[in-house]
Amino acid sequence: MKKTELRNMLEQVASGALSIDDAVLKLKAAPFNDLGFAKTDTHRAIRQGVAEVIYGEGKTPEQIEHIASDLLANGQKTVIITRLNAEKAAEIKKNIDIVYYEIARIGVAGEIPEPDTKGCIVIATGGTSDIQVAEEAATTALLLGNRVTRLYDIGVSGIHRLLSFKEELMSARVVVAAAGMEGALASVIGGLVDCPVIAVPTSVGYGASFGGITALLSMLNSCASGVSVVNIDNGFGAGYLASMINRMGE
Amino acid sequence: MKKTELRNMLEQVASGALSIDDAVLKLKAAPFNDLGFAKTDTHRAIRQGVAEVIYGEGKTPEQIEHIASDLLANGQKTVIITRLNAEKAAEIKKNIDIVYYEIARIGVAGEIPEPDTKGCIVIATGGTSDIQVAEEAATTALLLGNRVTRLYDIGVSGIHRLLSFKEELMSARVVVAAAGMEGALASVIGGLVDCPVIAVPTSVGYGASFGGITALLSMLNSCASGVSVVNIDNGFGAGYLASMINRMGE
Amino acid sequence: MKKTELRNMLEQVASGALSIDDAVLKLKAAPFNDLGFAKTDTHRAIRQGVAEVIYGEGKTPEQIEHIASDLLANGQKTVIITRLNAEKAAEIKKNIDIVYYEIARIGVAGEIPEPDTKGCIVIATGGTSDIQVAEEAATTALLLGNRVTRLYDIGVSGIHRLLSFKEELMSARVVVAAAGMEGALASVIGGLVDCPVIAVPTSVGYGASFGGITALLSMLNSCASGVSVVNIDNGFGAGYLASMINRMGE
Amino acid sequence: MKKTELRNMLEQVASGALSIDDAVLKLKAAPFNDLGFAKTDTHRAIRQGVAEVIYGEGKTPEQIEHIASDLLANGQKTVIITRLNAEKAAEIKKNIDIVYYEIARIGVAGEIPEPDTKGCIVIATGGTSDIQVAEEAATTALLLGNRVTRLYDIGVSGIHRLLSFKEELMSARVVVAAAGMEGALASVIGGLVDCPVIAVPTSVGYGASFGGITALLSMLNSCASGVSVVNIDNGFGAGYLASMINRMGE
Amino acid sequence: MKKTELRNMLEQVASGALSIDDAVLKLKAAPFNDLGFAKTDTHRAIRQGVAEVIYGEGKTPEQIEHIASDLLANGQKTVIITRLNAEKAAEIKKNIDIVYYEIARIGVAGEIPEPDTKGCIVIATGGTSDIQVAEEAATTALLLGNRVTRLYDIGVSGIHRLLSFKEELMSARVVVAAAGMEGALASVIGGLVDCPVIAVPTSVGYGASFGGITALLSMLNSCASGVSVVNIDNGFGAGYLASMINRMGE
Amino acid sequence: MKKTELRNMLEQVASGALSIDDAVLKLKAAPFNDLGFAKTDTHRAIRQGVAEVIYGEGKTPEQIEHIASDLLANGQKTVIITRLNAEKAAEIKKNIDIVYYEIARIGVAGEIPEPDTKGCIVIATGGTSDIQVAEEAATTALLLGNRVTRLYDIGVSGIHRLLSFKEELMSARVVVAAAGMEGALASVIGGLVDCPVIAVPTSVGYGASFGGITALLSMLNSCASGVSVVNIDNGFGAGYLASMINRMGE
Amino acid sequence: MKKTELRNMLEQVASGALSIDDAVLKLKAAPFNDLGFAKTDTHRAIRQGVAEVIYGEGKTPEQIEHIASDLLANGQKTVIITRLNAEKAAEIKKNIDIVYYEIARIGVAGEIPEPDTKGCIVIATGGTSDIQVAEEAATTALLLGNRVTRLYDIGVSGIHRLLSFKEELMSARVVVAAAGMEGALASVIGGLVDCPVIAVPTSVGYGASFGGITALLSMLNSCASGVSVVNIDNGFGAGYLASMINRMGE
Amino acid sequence: MKKTELRNMLEQVASGALSIDDAVLKLKAAPFNDLGFAKTDTHRAIRQGVAEVIYGEGKTPEQIEHIASDLLANGQKTVIITRLNAEKAAEIKKNIDIVYYEIARIGVAGEIPEPDTKGCIVIATGGTSDIQVAEEAATTALLLGNRVTRLYDIGVSGIHRLLSFKEELMSARVVVAAAGMEGALASVIGGLVDCPVIAVPTSVGYGASFGGITALLSMLNSCASGVSVVNIDNGFGAGYLASMINRMGE
Repeated sequence: MKKTELRNMLEQVASGALSIDDAVLKLKAAPFNDLGFAKTDTHRAIRQGVAEVIYGEGKTPEQIEHIASDLLANGQKTVIITRLNAEKAAEIKKNIDIVYYEIARIGVAGEIPEPDTKGCIVIATGGTSDIQVAEEAATTALLLGNRVTRLYDIGVSGIHRLLSFKEELMSARVVVAAAGMEGALASVIGGLVDCPVIAVPTSVGYGASFGGITALLSMLNSCASGVSVVNIDNGFGAGYLASMINRMGE
Repeated sequence: MKKTELRNMLEQVASGALSIDDAVLKLKAAPFNDLGFAKTDTHRAIRQGVAEVIYGEGKTPEQIEHIASDLLANGQKTVIITRLNAEKAAEIKKNIDIVYYEIARIGVAGEIPEPDTKGCIVIATGGTSDIQVAEEAATTALLLGNRVTRLYDIGVSGIHRLLSFKEELMSARVVVAAAGMEGALASVIGGLVDCPVIAVPTSVGYGASFGGITALLSMLNSCASGVSVVNIDNGFGAGYLASMINRMGE
Repeated sequence: MKKTELRNMLEQVASGALSIDDAVLKLKAAPFNDLGFAKTDTHRAIRQGVAEVIYGEGKTPEQIEHIASDLLANGQKTVIITRLNAEKAAEIKKNIDIVYYEIARIGVAGEIPEPDTKGCIVIATGGTSDIQVAEEAATTALLLGNRVTRLYDIGVSGIHRLLSFKEELMSARVVVAAAGMEGALASVIGGLVDCPVIAVPTSVGYGASFGGITALLSMLNSCASGVSVVNIDNGFGAGYLASMINRMGE
Repeated sequence: MKKTELRNMLEQVASGALSIDDAVLKLKAAPFNDLGFAKTDTHRAIRQGVAEVIYGEGKTPEQIEHIASDLLANGQKTVIITRLNAEKAAEIKKNIDIVYYEIARIGVAGEIPEPDTKGCIVIATGGTSDIQVAEEAATTALLLGNRVTRLYDIGVSGIHRLLSFKEELMSARVVVAAAGMEGALASVIGGLVDCPVIAVPTSVGYGASFGGITALLSMLNSCASGVSVVNIDNGFGAGYLASMINRMGE
Repeated sequence: MKKTELRNMLEQVASGALSIDDAVLKLKAAPFNDLGFAKTDTHRAIRQGVAEVIYGEGKTPEQIEHIASDLLANGQKTVIITRLNAEKAAEIKKNIDIVYYEIARIGVAGEIPEPDTKGCIVIATGGTSDIQVAEEAATTALLLGNRVTRLYDIGVSGIHRLLSFKEELMSARVVVAAAGMEGALASVIGGLVDCPVIAVPTSVGYGASFGGITALLSMLNSCASGVSVVNIDNGFGAGYLASMINRMGE
Repeated sequence: MKKTELRNMLEQVASGALSIDDAVLKLKAAPFNDLGFAKTDTHRAIRQGVAEVIYGEGKTPEQIEHIASDLLANGQKTVIITRLNAEKAAEIKKNIDIVYYEIARIGVAGEIPEPDTKGCIVIATGGTSDIQVAEEAATTALLLGNRVTRLYDIGVSGIHRLLSFKEELMSARVVVAAAGMEGALASVIGGLVDCPVIAVPTSVGYGASFGGITALLSMLNSCASGVSVVNIDNGFGAGYLASMINRMGE
Repeated sequence: MKKTELRNMLEQVASGALSIDDAVLKLKAAPFNDLGFAKTDTHRAIRQGVAEVIYGEGKTPEQIEHIASDLLANGQKTVIITRLNAEKAAEIKKNIDIVYYEIARIGVAGEIPEPDTKGCIVIATGGTSDIQVAEEAATTALLLGNRVTRLYDIGVSGIHRLLSFKEELMSARVVVAAAGMEGALASVIGGLVDCPVIAVPTSVGYGASFGGITALLSMLNSCASGVSVVNIDNGFGAGYLASMINRMGE
Repeated sequence: MKKTELRNMLEQVASGALSIDDAVLKLKAAPFNDLGFAKTDTHRAIRQGVAEVIYGEGKTPEQIEHIASDLLANGQKTVIITRLNAEKAAEIKKNIDIVYYEIARIGVAGEIPEPDTKGCIVIATGGTSDIQVAEEAATTALLLGNRVTRLYDIGVSGIHRLLSFKEELMSARVVVAAAGMEGALASVIGGLVDCPVIAVPTSVGYGASFGGITALLSMLNSCASGVSVVNIDNGFGAGYLASMINRMGE
């Protein structure tokens, strides 16, 4: 219930058009999401251009189609579907027109926005095996309208590779650093740049990498300032947050 | 070595004022931090107003005095000393004029800047025991010139307390959420606001809180988008990153 | 051996109808479950209407059929089979008339009781992926004769969803809160309601959710009073305990 | 804001005694705890006799005095202070009249209620070292007006001790089972009784007891139905929940 | 090199039949297993009747056949093959005459000894799912010639079941207690009997049973004296040690 | 209640000397420890010479004096007090005549038995720092009347030291192997001897020894047969079990 | 950029053949790997005979073919492909001439060097199941031109086996010790030899071996000097480091 | 027993000067350390100049004095005492002439050797807090006669600092890299140099550094070849191994 609605209702009470009992009922029933403080579907639909996101894992193609169609019908311009495997994507394509990014495991229905940000998000990875997670971040950021630079396979065990991209790194407004194994990439980049670094531990590695735990712990202990961490393999979360930060000051 | 210095040197080579051998030597000796891609002491001093930070733990009062004096002498306007206990602070005060924030365990030498940011950083805590960590974040952000709002003791087990501050939360440009025990504060705030949330797990709790591990894991698994995490009790890191984000677009 | 039986036997000894040697033998042989302090099959059958439960995992369809038939033959009205997958259920159906709840993975032979409790158990979940565990709890509670209200997908990252069900939550006599990832649902509900909250961590999530450990730890550290925790994914245990509490005072 | 107050206010709007603008303001300012869905200080004070609880750890004697005095002044009859060590208790006693339970580390200001429950809570421990935690539970339950039976040092390695108290155990409405080391007490009791068992792992033990983790895990895996678990050493939580359950059906 | 061989060699040196250099060489080359302090194949073959054991996991049927044939050819009367799945057993049976115990996953070639011990080993399990591990222990003990009593499914959550077997338990010379989940069986039995109890944690359970870790920790923390623990699911180790102890004093 | 007592009572019932009501009462009141299946104080006192044990940690000198005096008064010949520090021992000595073994932290009241076993228990340690735990085991075994051989500081990193004691090791009836750090001692001894090996992980070490966890895990994974493990630093448990095994066949 | 190139460039500046602006540009653009301090492909190709290594896991046969062909075309004499399964190897063989070592899962394209080291690397394993990891180490070392001695299945539970190879062990310049389960092999060998021991924990074992963690921890705690550890199952890393050490002083 | 002694003894047998029985006895009694395959005190004393090491922790000053005096009396030139705190060192100095290195916590009795190695060991640390561990490594290496270069506080979050020492790093024969927190130093150095890197995790850090576990895991997962790891804070082990490697080829 927005302020104006509240005022209207009270005016009806003052004029006798609404009984007190009915007003009490209405006030109690007014859902909290009408009070304007929460990100709800409708709320989001109002601010055009912001993509709505469906977490695809554990949902059937039919469920995804249903939600996506609904959102599009309600005026949503872009619908992002994350953690969508190729089989489900193929299934959905039969009924809805979606673009599918295989490595990122992301599908998109509706408009694909043009990058319109001044600043650029750099997505860096330690090795080639981190690319799937990085692509989830990169594709998310792109679909939220950001300019993105990919710097893949610049891990710290060959520090010259990383240093040869110092210009790209230093001109970034946000960096997403995805790495498995010892996860040192975030620290080294954090020491080079002046902008926020979002560290994404990946489950890449074997033995004592413990499915990303080592990288996670390593990144949390980064001695560089400006580094924060998201969950293991959470490329979407990193891309979403990077976009949020990149759009600060718009 | 800045671009102009490099140019000057090369002009001297061109004019014969500098021998080739000497130029080779100079170029080899030029520290990497002169190449413009790293945050170093000198580098920072150039950008006036940005505070230099000394990690106080494990350093003697004499060491801290020495570093702080040096920095001030080199033109640094504000020197922040973190993890500084009251005893060391008292010792240092005998020789250097510092302001000491006891709860935050932060000392400051030099100028204390006026908040000059348009946006505001909200620092929230779950309970009263998280305040020490929150104050480290708040004081850091303040000393970096940010406007700060403190919302302490608004933990999720009494959700009405948190909701009564929804306006403050929703008008923030960044939120720092410090909580121990089950660390759910970050998720609930992350679901309410549209800005980045920096989650700081605190070591508050007992038994299966495991010195902050439970809060840390909980925050990493936040189902709200826009949440990232720093190390347990790392109030400084959260405040520093919050400032970095709050100043985006300046 | 009940008190009256004991008295009878002693009377036989007194009257000489039973030799002392035979009495010694009888007393030694009297199984402990006859002493009235243990929940045994026979014991349970006496109290009509209380369902006997078979843990289906690791048992063959034949074994389950055998036990269930036995129980029904011995006067058991309702036999619940938990952790029963669809294949086994189909196999069993060929020989015994069972009702199968696929999402809950529960089969029932015999009568399905009508809900007869005054109070109501609310089963809440954080997300849609927690529903399987929640259904195990809900179906268990229903089959034990409780009235049940389901509130699914009301996770804390969209707190307005949860709050819009505050009436249902506040009128509950017990709440079962099933959630994975950061498991904050139990704390938030625990802060809203005045009744016992049984928290069920689920193995839903990825990365640092560690198959439910994060949710488990989070729930154990709940700062809300009245919250206790059962094993990861233990929907049956939660439903059983909820029924036990809901029936207090009958 | 209670329903009657809301109605009064709306009547004033209807009669013109209150302007619409002021009504809007009032409604926005009305704290959420007035809406009737949350346990707040004021809310609790209304339901006489329910004790308000202060978590003493980390608070100074002055802070505790201040809060306790406030609560008493607002009509609170009993104020419980948990995790209160003997030094602080002695300090507080100088200014407020409190009763101090040393083993339980609990202080009480105001009236100490007489047990008035029909049912009885049994508090059991595995060994003598678990008694501190058990006393926290027992004292909490007593101060919330419950009848309490203590069965200490009846650990499972001498099963006859436990069995000799089967009557006390079987007549309980709720059992709190506190145990360290292997924590098997909860399972054995859970198999004997028909009522809810609240398991409290204690940090008693050495070596691979890991400060209570072993007992915690053991209790979570209890194969007995009706057992749920609270945090390590959380005697208060167990006592509070036990009281909640014991009072069901009043 | 046995004492007599050493003496012979020295006599040859004394008689000049062996040169000093050759004697030096021989003494250095003499394998340590000849010195009589190690359990080697040959060594074992001497003490007739003691079974030689082959760990079947990770070995091909051909490898197992080869080793078993060799041992039998060298005078070994009984050859036990552990961790042998049904497929491999069927394959081996084509070439060697073995008896296969399916639940225990043990195959035996050669003679199957008659139980000849005065004392009896009791093998107990908490539930029906622990039987596979228990059978590995029982079969191992039987094949080493021990008398064995099986007490399966006597878990502590129904303590009367366990107590009804107190005579069998109390007459045992060694007890093997196999249990998963909370693993309390070992403690309760350890408190009842006066003989050594070998606890075998099993990987039975789900959620926080962590594949047997909870049972393992629980058993290590047993407050009963006389309890020691072997690796998770190590039925063979328990059976072997039980036999060793049962045969003490023969 | 022993069989003869039971018979006597029943005879009284038969003769009318005891009323049926009184018999019912007596039978109900008869403590389970009288049924002959449990190790209780009285029970133990009957079998002369078996020492009763008091766990000293967490008990006051007064409590220990009280229990020890009681036991002695009831005919107990030897009372062992474990985990008794020097201060408490000195305090107790003022009132009771005890012998105190400082390194083992064990006190003894009453008779100290002469070793009377045919077989010998070997207590071995990896290093000198494991001696405290080893002495707890050795003293326990000695006070239970066993012959004991100590082989200290024979760790596996200097395998020749261990091998030079092969005769002592091979003539043992039981070996207790106490070791911290990598805990390999148990495996190497287990491969040398034919008797049971009780492995005691000690909390000796630093860094990744994790207070004995590494030694514990290492010992549980011993590839030698006949090895079982007790809790970290549990010298008493090892000595007690070793005595139990050493006395088999007496 | 090598020193001579730098000098040339500066001479061009001095002679006016290169403008200052172009020189600035060139200096900034000069990749760090040209500065001579990093191991890059080109760099390595210069030092003939050193094999280049491709990590095969997660790469398609096409990708591997492409990289290998490239390296061979650029003058690389030997190309090692690790973690290459048999299927991929077969696929690659269709297009490139490679030798495939199945147990080691290593493929080699180009020349296979003759062992040319004076010293010898000993590769030892505890059991037969560790051989796959050991072969990865042995093959790596061989392909880097080292002389290698294999001592497999000499685990510590039969110490005589290990000791019978003391000459081979003592003549080694480096030892690689691969073992799972309790991982004691490294300690025992470390105590026998005077050369560096590289310990490789393997994921061999079950239950509390935790996929190699126990062996890893055990090896890190080795009380023998000269032992260091690589990641679980990292045979390649051990072989590479062993070669590096074996070639010291060439 | 050395080869010559063995030969002498056999000559006595041949000449009849020694009876065969006595020879048998002597050969059996000859300690294994005389057979030449183990590093024993005497053995070491033969190779002059190699320092003998006493682990000081847990030993009294008297014990240390005793061992050190013994070693010096037996011809040992240098005796190193590690983990020796200042108090014990002062105590020992009263009786033996030792040099004490306070930061390294190492004392030395006897001659302090001059560095005589051609190659140089580089000891690097991430921060200033790692210096204590690094000094233990450096002092150990120095006392074993190595040339040592210290590069302290060159952590990866300011990569330019590390790179400015690339010449020192690249000219090393071995590098010891000591770092806490995220432990990335080892990886970055491992990628720069061509020699073995011994990584020493330190317990420096807070929160999720878990007393060095994070650094340990990070180092074990290093993606750079040639890196191996020792225990947390094991400076001595790293220095000893570094010396062993540095002296290869002498």
